[in-house]
Amino acid sequence: MSMDVGFMGLGAMGGGVAGNLLRAGHRLLIWNRSAAPVDRLVAQGALRAGSPPEAASASIFFSMLPEDSAIRSVFIEGGLLERLKPGAIHVNLATISVSFAREFAALHRRRGVGYVAAPVLGRPDVAAAGKLNIMAAGASADIERVQPLLDAIGQKTWRFGEEPERANAVKLAANFMIASALQTMAEATALLRAHDIAASDFLEIATSTLFAAPVYQGYGKLIADERYAPAGFKLRLGLKDIRLALEAADKVHVPMPFASVLKDNFLDAMAQGDGDLDWSALAKVALRRAGRS
Amino acid sequence: MSMDVGFMGLGAMGGGVAGNLLRAGHRLLIWNRSAAPVDRLVAQGALRAGSPPEAASASIFFSMLPEDSAIRSVFIEGGLLERLKPGAIHVNLATISVSFAREFAALHRRRGVGYVAAPVLGRPDVAAAGKLNIMAAGASADIERVQPLLDAIGQKTWRFGEEPERANAVKLAANFMIASALQTMAEATALLRAHDIAASDFLEIATSTLFAAPVYQGYGKLIADERYAPAGFKLRLGLKDIRLALEAADKVHVPMPFASVLKDNFLDAMAQGDGDLDWSALAKVALRRAGRS
Amino acid sequence: MSMDVGFMGLGAMGGGVAGNLLRAGHRLLIWNRSAAPVDRLVAQGALRAGSPPEAASASIFFSMLPEDSAIRSVFIEGGLLERLKPGAIHVNLATISVSFAREFAALHRRRGVGYVAAPVLGRPDVAAAGKLNIMAAGASADIERVQPLLDAIGQKTWRFGEEPERANAVKLAANFMIASALQTMAEATALLRAHDIAASDFLEIATSTLFAAPVYQGYGKLIADERYAPAGFKLRLGLKDIRLALEAADKVHVPMPFASVLKDNFLDAMAQGDGDLDWSALAKVALRRAGRS
Amino acid sequence: MSMDVGFMGLGAMGGGVAGNLLRAGHRLLIWNRSAAPVDRLVAQGALRAGSPPEAASASIFFSMLPEDSAIRSVFIEGGLLERLKPGAIHVNLATISVSFAREFAALHRRRGVGYVAAPVLGRPDVAAAGKLNIMAAGASADIERVQPLLDAIGQKTWRFGEEPERANAVKLAANFMIASALQTMAEATALLRAHDIAASDFLEIATSTLFAAPVYQGYGKLIADERYAPAGFKLRLGLKDIRLALEAADKVHVPMPFASVLKDNFLDAMAQGDGDLDWSALAKVALRRAGRS
Repeated sequence: MSMDVGFMGLGAMGGGVAGNLLRAGHRLLIWNRSAAPVDRLVAQGALRAGSPPEAASASIFFSMLPEDSAIRSVFIEGGLLERLKPGAIHVNLATISVSFAREFAALHRRRGVGYVAAPVLGRPDVAAAGKLNIMAAGASADIERVQPLLDAIGQKTWRFGEEPERANAVKLAANFMIASALQTMAEATALLRAHDIAASDFLEIATSTLFAAPVYQGYGKLIADERYAPAGFKLRLGLKDIRLALEAADKVHVPMPFASVLKDNFLDAMAQGDGDLDWSALAKVALRRAGRS
Repeated sequence: MSMDVGFMGLGAMGGGVAGNLLRAGHRLLIWNRSAAPVDRLVAQGALRAGSPPEAASASIFFSMLPEDSAIRSVFIEGGLLERLKPGAIHVNLATISVSFAREFAALHRRRGVGYVAAPVLGRPDVAAAGKLNIMAAGASADIERVQPLLDAIGQKTWRFGEEPERANAVKLAANFMIASALQTMAEATALLRAHDIAASDFLEIATSTLFAAPVYQGYGKLIADERYAPAGFKLRLGLKDIRLALEAADKVHVPMPFASVLKDNFLDAMAQGDGDLDWSALAKVALRRAGRS
Repeated sequence: MSMDVGFMGLGAMGGGVAGNLLRAGHRLLIWNRSAAPVDRLVAQGALRAGSPPEAASASIFFSMLPEDSAIRSVFIEGGLLERLKPGAIHVNLATISVSFAREFAALHRRRGVGYVAAPVLGRPDVAAAGKLNIMAAGASADIERVQPLLDAIGQKTWRFGEEPERANAVKLAANFMIASALQTMAEATALLRAHDIAASDFLEIATSTLFAAPVYQGYGKLIADERYAPAGFKLRLGLKDIRLALEAADKVHVPMPFASVLKDNFLDAMAQGDGDLDWSALAKVALRRAGRS
Repeated sequence: MSMDVGFMGLGAMGGGVAGNLLRAGHRLLIWNRSAAPVDRLVAQGALRAGSPPEAASASIFFSMLPEDSAIRSVFIEGGLLERLKPGAIHVNLATISVSFAREFAALHRRRGVGYVAAPVLGRPDVAAAGKLNIMAAGASADIERVQPLLDAIGQKTWRFGEEPERANAVKLAANFMIASALQTMAEATALLRAHDIAASDFLEIATSTLFAAPVYQGYGKLIADERYAPAGFKLRLGLKDIRLALEAADKVHVPMPFASVLKDNFLDAMAQGDGDLDWSALAKVALRRAGRS
C-alpha cells in the first residue's frame, strides 16, 4: 500500500533511505538544505517540498539530521515541531543522545504527534541497498503503522519497547562496541608491529577464526593497510557518539573505562588534525604513541 | 607416516591434543603429573613413560604445561632440558611470555635441539575435536618435520617466521582481543541494563549483525545469562595472559590502555574471590561497579 | 569606601562571603531561596530584598548559585539577567562550565552589564574567615571597581585576564588537581593496606615531607580514618566538577586520562549510593575494588 | 661511637650518603665499579677495598645498587651474599621490588646475616646534605644497631616493622604519588594551555595555596618552563618504579588505575626516545597528545 511520506535530511545515509522508500512505491515529499540530493530524487519521482514545513505536513514524516544540536535548532528553536500534524508520526532515524531523545519524544507527545526512534546500523552502501538493521522504539501502534516503510529501507527491525530513547541507547551501545573493536585492533597491531609481525598476518588469523565478523574483517583491512581516507565514518562523528554513550552512562551512574579510553584517544586524534579520517584511525594514535608510525 | 612422539602435560587441552595424535596413528609415549589422564590414553594405545626424561627421550617431544614458572621449574631447574636429544624437536604448545620464549628457544639452540613454539587457539572441546588453530614459529625445517603432527591436532597452522617467540606474541595478542571483547560486552551490558534494556535483547542484534563471530556469540550468551561457572577459561588465567601481553608491550615500549583497564578489572575480580569463574565474569565487575549486580 | 552590593545565593559558601562583605562595612541587599540564612545576615545588618530582581538592582551584584543549570534557570529562563542595570557589574563566584561562562559573559556584554568571573578556592570555614583565594577574570576596569569587595572576602585575588571563562577553567583545573590527589592517596592506601601497612603510617611520612601541603594533610587524615561523613565537599559535586573539566578539555581536544579515571570512580561511588559522602570517599572505591573494605 | 662500615654503590645518591657517614666519623671501606667516586672519597679519608668481598666483610655493610637485576647479579649469581659474615648487618638503600625484597631478606636470614631495608626519599642534593627521609624495616635490634649510621645520612628514620619488604612497598607508594602529581600537573597544564592560560600562572596559585608542597613547587617549575633536562630523576627510572608498584599491587590484587595510566604514558615517552629526560617529561606526553607541543 502506497503511503505519503515527508522526508528531511538527504545526506549520505538519508539519500539512500529515501531512494528505497521511493522504489517501494511510496510518494515522497522531500526537503534538504542543499539542492543536489533533492534534484536526484526528484528525477526518480519524488516531489520537491517548497519548505521544511511543507515536507513536515505529511502524515508520516522521516528525518535524518546529523545530531542533537541540528535537530534542536530545526524542530524546537526553528519551530518545525509545531508544523507536524496531530495524529501524524515522526520517524527519527538519527543517532541522538538518550536525554534529548526523551525530551524530544515528550514534546511530540504533548502535541499529539507519534514519535518513533529508529536509528540504524549500516554505512551508506548498506543504506542504499535497503539492508539496514533498524532499532525501533515507540508506541506499538505507531511502529506498526510505519513498519511497511521500515521494511522498505532495512533488512530487519529490532524492537526495544515503548520508550523511544531506548532505541537510541542501543544504537550508542552498538557504536561503542564498534569503536572498542577498533581500539582493540589498534593496540594489538602496535604490539605486534613492535615485535616485527605485520598487522595483516595477525588480523588474517583473527578474522578467519574467533573474530570472523564484518566489523573485524572490514576495519581490520583498513588498519592493516593504514588506509584511513576516504572516511566511511568520520572520526569526529565517532567521538560524538562515544561522548553520547558516556553521557548516557553518566546519567545512570555506569562507569565505562573502555569508553573513557576511547574518548581520550579520539581527542588525541582530533588534536593532531585527524578528525576527518575514518574512525579506524584510532590505530594511527596507537602506532604514534608506540613510536611506530 | 607414523611417528614416535613424547608428550607431557595432559590437562584439559593437552589430553585432547594427545588423543588426536594417537588417533592419527602416531606412537605416543606419555607422562603426566596425575595418573588419570595417562590411564585413559594408555587404554587407547599410548605408552606410559616411567618418568619425564623417558618421555622426553623421543625424537619429537610435545609439551603443554600451564605457564612460564612450571616450564622453568621442570625444564631448567629440574634439568629436563638436558635430557632432550640433540637433533630432536620440542614442540611447545603452551601460552608463555615472549621473553621466556626467547630465552627458552636459545637454551634449546645451545643444545642442538629444535624448538617450535606452537600455541593454539581453541577451548578444550575444540582441542578434542582436532580443530585448533595453531600459531607456529621456529626453523622452517623443524616446522616441516612436525607439520603432519600439527595437522592431526588442528584445522590450520598459521606460520609466523623463524623466531619462536613471535608465535607467542601473536597468541597473547589474540587473547588480549578476546578479553577486550568481553570487557566491551560487559560495559555495554551495564549501560543498557541501567536503561532497562536486557543484555540478551541487545546482544541478539549485535551478534546477528556486525558482531556475528564466535567470540561474541559464545561469550555474549554467558554474559546475558550471568552464567560464569563452570569456567571454560578461568579468569585467573585470563589475568595471567593479559599480564604477559602487557609485559611484551612494556619490553618494546607500546602503551596499551585497554590492556591496562583489563588488568585492573581482572584484579578487581580476583580481589572479590572470583578467580575461578570464567573470564567473562568481567561482566560481574562492570555490573557491580554500576550498582546493578 | 562603603558600597551597595546585591547578593544572591547564601549557601554554606555564599553565607560566609556575604558576612565578610557586611563586616567590611558594605551595604548588603540580600536574597535567598530559603529564609534562615537571610534572617541571620539581617540580624547582622543586611537588608532583605523582597525579590531576586530587587537584589539584582544594585550597581554591584554578587551571586553564588550551585551550578550551570541553576544559573541558567534563574538568569536566562527566569529573566533576572534583564533586571541587571546597564553599567552595573555582576560578580559570579560560582564554579561553572567554561562554555556556559563564555555564553553568560556574552549575554551580559550585550546588555551593557559588566561581568566578572570570580570562582574561589576554599571550603566553608575558609570562606567564613575571609581567607579565600579568588581567581578573577573580566574587564580590568570592572575588576578594579570590585577589588575592594574581593579584598574583603579573600586573602588574595589572582587575575587571569579579560575573558571571564578563563577564571573558570583555572578553577576546574584546581579541582581536578584536588581530586587527583585524593585518588592518588586512595590507590596508595589500598596498595599498602594489602601489604599490612596502615594508611596513617604511610600518610604521616608523605605529608611530613614531599607532600606537606594542606590538600594531602587534610584529606590524608580523612582517608586514614575512613571518615567520609559529614562531607566537607560532597562527592556528587566533585563528580560535577570533573565532568566540567572533561567538558572543557573535550572542547579543545585535550585528552585527560586521569580525569577520565576520576569520573569512572566517582560514578562507581554514586552507583553504590555514596554521593553525599565527602569526595575523599574515592578511597572507599579503591578499597572495595581491592577487596579491603 | 665510630663504626666500621663497608659501602658499595657510589652513584649520585650513594656517593652523597657515603660522604656523610665519613663526615660523621665512621671508618668506611668502599668499593664501586667505576673509580672516580672512590678516589674522591678516599681523598676524604675512606679506605679503598680491593674487591667487593673485601668491602662486604665489614660488620655493617651498606649497598645502593640501581635495581633488582643488578643486586641479583652481584649478590646471588655473583656470590657476594656468601661473603657477608654471620652476625653482620646488610643495609640495603636501594629501591627494589617487594617480591625480591622478600626473597633477598630470606636469603640473608638463612645465612644468619641481618637485613635492613632502608630505601630513601630525596634527590642527590638532599643525600649530599644528609637530609634524606629513610623508610626502614627489619629486625628491631638490627635497626637499633645501625640507627646512628642512619642518623648520619638522614633527617629522620621512619620505621615500618619487622618485614623488610614493607619499607620497599612504602617507597614504591611514595614514588607512585610523585609520578601521579607529575601527571596531574601535566594534564592541568595541557588543559589550560589550550585555553590560553600559561602553566606558570596556574601553577603559581596552586603551589602557593593547596599544593604548597615541595613536589608541586619543584616539579611545577620544571613543567612550566618545559625544562626536562638535565634529569634530576630519569624518566626510565620512573617507569621502573611504577612497574614495581604495579607488580606489588598485582601480587595482592589491588587495581591501580592511575598507576596504569602512568605506565602507559611513561611507555609513550620511552617510545619517543625521551627515557633520559627528567620524569616530569610526562608533561611533554600530555602536551603532544593535546597537539600543544
